[in-house]
Amino acid sequence: MIKPLGDRVVVKALEREEKTKSGIVLPDTAKEKPQEGKIVAVGTGKLLENGQRVPLDVKEGDKVVFSKYGGTEIKIDGQDYLILSERDVLAIVE
Amino acid sequence: MIKPLGDRVVVKALEREEKTKSGIVLPDTAKEKPQEGKIVAVGTGKLLENGQRVPLDVKEGDKVVFSKYGGTEIKIDGQDYLILSERDVLAIVE
Amino acid sequence: MIKPLGDRVVVKALEREEKTKSGIVLPDTAKEKPQEGKIVAVGTGKLLENGQRVPLDVKEGDKVVFSKYGGTEIKIDGQDYLILSERDVLAIVE
Amino acid sequence: MIKPLGDRVVVKALEREEKTKSGIVLPDTAKEKPQEGKIVAVGTGKLLENGQRVPLDVKEGDKVVFSKYGGTEIKIDGQDYLILSERDVLAIVE
Amino acid sequence: MIKPLGDRVVVKALEREEKTKSGIVLPDTAKEKPQEGKIVAVGTGKLLENGQRVPLDVKEGDKVVFSKYGGTEIKIDGQDYLILSERDVLAIVE
Amino acid sequence: MIKPLGDRVVVKALEREEKTKSGIVLPDTAKEKPQEGKIVAVGTGKLLENGQRVPLDVKEGDKVVFSKYGGTEIKIDGQDYLILSERDVLAIVE
Amino acid sequence: MIKPLGDRVVVKALEREEKTKSGIVLPDTAKEKPQEGKIVAVGTGKLLENGQRVPLDVKEGDKVVFSKYGGTEIKIDGQDYLILSERDVLAIVE
Repeated sequence: MIKPLGDRVVVKALEREEKTKSGIVLPDTAKEKPQEGKIVAVGTGKLLENGQRVPLDVKEGDKVVFSKYGGTEIKIDGQDYLILSERDVLAIVE
Repeated sequence: MIKPLGDRVVVKALEREEKTKSGIVLPDTAKEKPQEGKIVAVGTGKLLENGQRVPLDVKEGDKVVFSKYGGTEIKIDGQDYLILSERDVLAIVE
Repeated sequence: MIKPLGDRVVVKALEREEKTKSGIVLPDTAKEKPQEGKIVAVGTGKLLENGQRVPLDVKEGDKVVFSKYGGTEIKIDGQDYLILSERDVLAIVE
Repeated sequence: MIKPLGDRVVVKALEREEKTKSGIVLPDTAKEKPQEGKIVAVGTGKLLENGQRVPLDVKEGDKVVFSKYGGTEIKIDGQDYLILSERDVLAIVE
Repeated sequence: MIKPLGDRVVVKALEREEKTKSGIVLPDTAKEKPQEGKIVAVGTGKLLENGQRVPLDVKEGDKVVFSKYGGTEIKIDGQDYLILSERDVLAIVE
Repeated sequence: MIKPLGDRVVVKALEREEKTKSGIVLPDTAKEKPQEGKIVAVGTGKLLENGQRVPLDVKEGDKVVFSKYGGTEIKIDGQDYLILSERDVLAIVE
Repeated sequence: MIKPLGDRVVVKALEREEKTKSGIVLPDTAKEKPQEGKIVAVGTGKLLENGQRVPLDVKEGDKVVFSKYGGTEIKIDGQDYLILSERDVLAIVE
């Protein structure tokens, strides 16, 4: 598996039918084409200028809405993933 | 429901008639096309460089004026919402 | 009424004749088209990186010169107002 | 009179003959067209990220060389003034 | 050998067959054309504004996914290497 | 004379023959057309975000190499000078 | 000789045959055209926002790989040198 660094996370995008069950529809018109997905791995945290390491607000298994804008696509054992910074994760879907 | 992260908020835009009751009219000419709406969820707060987490100035139920500029549109159970940073919320309408 | 957030203020632009009484004329040639107006509401203050909240240098009723550049226009009960950051307020007119 | 805010100053540009007396000639070729003038009012000081307010290095009556680049022109009782940030004041002319 | 400075690392890009063994395929479509490789040397750490030197999150021998975007190519004794900042290293492949 | 503010310095550019004596030749090809000159006045120092004022690394009389890029030209009593930030002074010529 | 200021260094670029002895070949294709050279002088160190002066990671005599991108060319007594910031020095060649 892959372990993201610092304040990055690895997300598995949810397929269409998975999305409709959650009732969330992300209009394609939006400039940043937000997406829904599941967090599969999180980094060690955000390093602040005072040397403190702050754990991320999301954890493995969280269902989230994120903006694809700055992410990096990667395929592992045939499955698509996206590596992105935590600031591109907009909200947790409860 | 969805839980915004960090210093983000979720806003439900007010319909036209709801706006006229509040007496607020937002001219379309303005570059940032400000909007009126209601806060439906707020993030855990803004993380400062000294590690402190500062609660947001707005809370659930506040009626606000905001600039749509940097927001992300999202539809949940057929209702439109906007996820934006608190700095795009300009004022609370009392 | 509306309560601006953080380091923002709400300004009511002065009409032409109100301006000539104060002797201040703002040439249109200037790139930022400065304006004269009155502060009608101020935010809770500027949040610094050390978590301190610094009150604004202007208060309700101050007559000010400001640059329209980054403001957001808004009309409340038929009256035009501008929501802007305190850094766009250049000076107080005594 | 007008009271500049924060780290701003109000400058009255010196007329041509006033300049030649001081021996200072500012070539027009320079990109930023530097100017000579007199400080007529100074702000309360520069606000640092640690909350400290640092008084400005110039005071009322100082003769200065400044770059017009970021200033805002304003006319008060028929006299032209310029509101600019202290960082656009390059030097004091002794 | 070469010793990278500060928060830089030296990476040896993995050949095609080495990559397929790890099951990781990096689609060329991705804007930043992420790559897989091995860390061969790490810098002394990231210097923070408070003077603290923070060791890097990766070490010699780690298999990583990185974005080629800001790196500098260098050939030593016929072998290709890339010098890049740690922030361009996205994740460790376990 | 003129007293530069903050982290600025006043430099008098060296004439051609003065330069060849020092053995320093500055190729015109370089983007920033570096120049040689003498420091004639220095500011009170660089103001840091913690409020500390750090004296400049150069002093009156130092012969220096500097990049003309961000400077402001000024002529005083017929002599050309340049007002620039200390960060545009590259080195002291001993 | 010349004494670089702050976090700058003076580098003497290595001639072609000197480079091949060290086994390092720097492909011209690389956007930033990295170069090999020797450090001939270092500045007093990097000034941090807390007022601390941090000594540089390189010293006189170090063989280094650097990116020419932001440097300033200078010829002293017929010999070419480059003045650059330490952040443009990528690695030390041991």
